[in-house]
Amino acid sequence: MKNSETIIDVLIKNFSSLPGIGRKSAARIVYHLLKEDSFFTDNLSDNIKKLKETIKPCPVCGCYTDAHECGICSDATRNKKLLCVVENPQDIDIIESTGAFDGYYHVLMGLLSPIDGIGPEKLNVYPLISRIEKGEVEELIFALNPSVEGETTALYIQKMLENRGIHIKVTRLASGLPVGGDLEYVDRMTLTRSLLGRTSI
Amino acid sequence: MKNSETIIDVLIKNFSSLPGIGRKSAARIVYHLLKEDSFFTDNLSDNIKKLKETIKPCPVCGCYTDAHECGICSDATRNKKLLCVVENPQDIDIIESTGAFDGYYHVLMGLLSPIDGIGPEKLNVYPLISRIEKGEVEELIFALNPSVEGETTALYIQKMLENRGIHIKVTRLASGLPVGGDLEYVDRMTLTRSLLGRTSI
Repeated sequence: MKNSETIIDVLIKNFSSLPGIGRKSAARIVYHLLKEDSFFTDNLSDNIKKLKETIKPCPVCGCYTDAHECGICSDATRNKKLLCVVENPQDIDIIESTGAFDGYYHVLMGLLSPIDGIGPEKLNVYPLISRIEKGEVEELIFALNPSVEGETTALYIQKMLENRGIHIKVTRLASGLPVGGDLEYVDRMTLTRSLLGRTSI
Repeated sequence: MKNSETIIDVLIKNFSSLPGIGRKSAARIVYHLLKEDSFFTDNLSDNIKKLKETIKPCPVCGCYTDAHECGICSDATRNKKLLCVVENPQDIDIIESTGAFDGYYHVLMGLLSPIDGIGPEKLNVYPLISRIEKGEVEELIFALNPSVEGETTALYIQKMLENRGIHIKVTRLASGLPVGGDLEYVDRMTLTRSLLGRTSI
């Protein structure tokens, strides 16, 4: 019978508020930390504090960086003509891991969602427009999730550019069959898109 | 292209070494922390540090406590005749939640496992024997997992008591059908045990 809330209970609550961690997993983690030596827990604790102190948004693209400008934005050897728009900073790592893109990125930090009250002013949209207005970008590639919010956001930004008389090539990631996938298991929408976007062989 | 390891990468490694968290979940958590306000992250960081500073093993039962003795051991109204042996401190919470036990606990902090080099000297076994030798305990209840290690550990402690001429009642949790379970889905071992341990109605 416990009389009051201990730090164990408090920390279980802390951990269970993180994404993907339920109450049972949180308890497992906290009891694991109790078994770990202090070096590990002190290190974890310090790193969490350091995270917010050292990581700031890159003033150019909006992704996270511990420098004044992020590594990609400060790399002058990349292709200035290509600008890839992503939802979150972690999307950059995924695209970079393919090695198939050598342009620059712009992170929106979310997608437009009128239902949730997320308008363009809450996202990194206006700095994107200013960036394109400088005139170096020739193709804007939307690498957003193929969802309603993703499509809406891309369409909205495209309209904004048109209204300002900016006419550059605007593309989005191809939709279609996953490599190694099976026709049988592909949903109708994806199949429709992959038919519309068929490529000659 | 990243030049060096940032605190983001370091913290992702930290989190992915916790139980039940893979690399992708760890990345999700770290990017979530970046979006959270500093109040939350500072609080999490401080609580992790406080955890190891304030929580110590109870000198009587071995469970975790922030006081000199844990709440259960310092509660004189419980039944001194019953002592329940569990593997981990979190098992106490589970048994307490049933409200069906009013004795005391003893936490082994693991189970005997000769393959993994875990002998009785690495567990909280000898203090258990000393506790029983004081003569107040009349029944020792093993609430260990029904695994080979659980059975071995219970048997080993029982033998130790016999060798010291201590003859008290030794019991273990009943094995059988889970309440609401279906005969069809019960494994043969559990069914055998529930037959051997059948109770009159």
